[in-house]
Amino acid sequence: MLERLRGGEHRLVVISDEQVESAVRPHFFSDVPWLSVPAGESSKCIETAARLWSQLAQLKADRQTVILGIGGGVVGDLAGFVAATYMRGVTFYSLPTSLLAMVDASVGGKVGIDLPEGKNLVGNFYPAAVVAVDPELLRTLPGPEWASGMAEVIKHGILSGESLWETVSSFSWEKAEQIEVLDHLVYSAVRVKLEVVQEDPYERTGLRATLNLGHTFGHALEWCSGYSVRHGEAVGLGLLAGLRLSRELDILEADFETELVACLRCWSLPTSLPEPIAEHWSWEKMCEAFARDKKNRDGQWTFILPKAKGQVETVVAPSQEAVQTVFESLRSEPE
Amino acid sequence: MLERLRGGEHRLVVISDEQVESAVRPHFFSDVPWLSVPAGESSKCIETAARLWSQLAQLKADRQTVILGIGGGVVGDLAGFVAATYMRGVTFYSLPTSLLAMVDASVGGKVGIDLPEGKNLVGNFYPAAVVAVDPELLRTLPGPEWASGMAEVIKHGILSGESLWETVSSFSWEKAEQIEVLDHLVYSAVRVKLEVVQEDPYERTGLRATLNLGHTFGHALEWCSGYSVRHGEAVGLGLLAGLRLSRELDILEADFETELVACLRCWSLPTSLPEPIAEHWSWEKMCEAFARDKKNRDGQWTFILPKAKGQVETVVAPSQEAVQTVFESLRSEPE
Repeated sequence: MLERLRGGEHRLVVISDEQVESAVRPHFFSDVPWLSVPAGESSKCIETAARLWSQLAQLKADRQTVILGIGGGVVGDLAGFVAATYMRGVTFYSLPTSLLAMVDASVGGKVGIDLPEGKNLVGNFYPAAVVAVDPELLRTLPGPEWASGMAEVIKHGILSGESLWETVSSFSWEKAEQIEVLDHLVYSAVRVKLEVVQEDPYERTGLRATLNLGHTFGHALEWCSGYSVRHGEAVGLGLLAGLRLSRELDILEADFETELVACLRCWSLPTSLPEPIAEHWSWEKMCEAFARDKKNRDGQWTFILPKAKGQVETVVAPSQEAVQTVFESLRSEPE
Repeated sequence: MLERLRGGEHRLVVISDEQVESAVRPHFFSDVPWLSVPAGESSKCIETAARLWSQLAQLKADRQTVILGIGGGVVGDLAGFVAATYMRGVTFYSLPTSLLAMVDASVGGKVGIDLPEGKNLVGNFYPAAVVAVDPELLRTLPGPEWASGMAEVIKHGILSGESLWETVSSFSWEKAEQIEVLDHLVYSAVRVKLEVVQEDPYERTGLRATLNLGHTFGHALEWCSGYSVRHGEAVGLGLLAGLRLSRELDILEADFETELVACLRCWSLPTSLPEPIAEHWSWEKMCEAFARDKKNRDGQWTFILPKAKGQVETVVAPSQEAVQTVFESLRSEPE
């Protein structure tokens, strides 16, 4: 299947990370140039983008060149942004290799890099012309990477309501071994996102913003940790925090904290601030992070909160006291 | 008129250069934040874009913020790129203050920055939501800036054929004093560009590429000089070189070198490589620059060449010997 990504006559350049390159290149696309960056979120920065732009120019890549991003969410965002901007945009193909990238990052065209001031503050909407999703590639995915992707799958489960939630909450390490069960899960999770972004591709009606469930807290927790927690871990905690904030603000109509906690634990996702780095998080630092959230209008904090499974609400400027109470609750494990 | 750019409720941030700020800010928009960069092409770089992105984040600019670019082509390209990418795109208004920016840079949505490897290699297509063109602002434009803009006006004259050519070639410093004559010239020149970019906004059909008349040589001459010649000077020389290459390749059907040279001289635009920096240009360096031109396919040099006024042809992979002959001809003044 993967060889189909060559896509005819066009010249292909792969953007990837060093770990993925050593795993994939011996088997696929060994004969085209690979521009690989160090693995990890810290590569999603201006300096790396600048290096990739220059490398493309030095390879004499032109407007007919196709950039193929092979990797997880970081590679997808970075390669997509480089493709969106090199010569004002060249064709972009995406081959996600992580669960997170398959169900979330590769779909919907959000590409970009981080600033010292916050994540994803610079970027474009630039959907890949082709996204090839092959769950077989997940066979060798390390455990923590699985967990990280499952946080977004769980989010999609909450957003879609009972039917996908059922599949998601009964999914397990054992079931992941059965390729048809895994295929079904990935397909269903991707579809949740696809339906939303097709209706609101540029995040204008508020619909697409609902995909940000768990992410106001999530991004803030990630930023405060200097990105030492994984995106999925932060999102898992963010989903829990969102649910609690919803309860705190009396919006929650059907509580599902017990189920959510069970689901997070099943994938070894944290349900409280990870001990060794708990000192990273202060309320003051969280406030600074909230103030920078891209959903804010006129500086007012904005949260997407669940009312029940399958039902969310956008809450602008909630009581800071309530938000702080929820943040402090993350310091201790739920029962 | 300018105050209309405030555009309602939205928060405005001005991106400009230091020279323009000191001339304009005392009169307009004194009460909004100005982010001003040093004047000149060297500000159209990654480092400056990175600083502006961070400054916007520090100002807590959000997705409702409107970025107003006030300045010449450099400011327009840079501010437009920052607007296109900050938070994946915020609204962009443009107030061009130079003739070059009014007739060319502000129209058509090409925004971007330079790489060490070449001009405009990174960017987006991101048309300004509003472009306010007010030729009154040109009253205080320095002479060399006029000349630089006139090079693009002359290009539009060649592209449009006899009617605009007539206006362009009879235009003079004296006529520029008459605001209605100037208005007419600017309006007609903008219209040439507007008609082209409306038909081929993303440079896909080849039509928009015709606006690149004179620019294959122009960009190469500029790059070889380390950007010490002005864009307009390089384009003027590029128009002359294009005409000569057309003659050399036997494409030229109606010669107009004498008229073109007269027109360039009228605005004190160079008609041969400027003496003090002539040593910048070697054939080898020009070849390197040609190889990086964004119009190239499969590394083949591509030139837009005039057949006559109002008629151009895209020439791929012309004889290098012919190109070199033309390049060498730029070393001596035309008769």
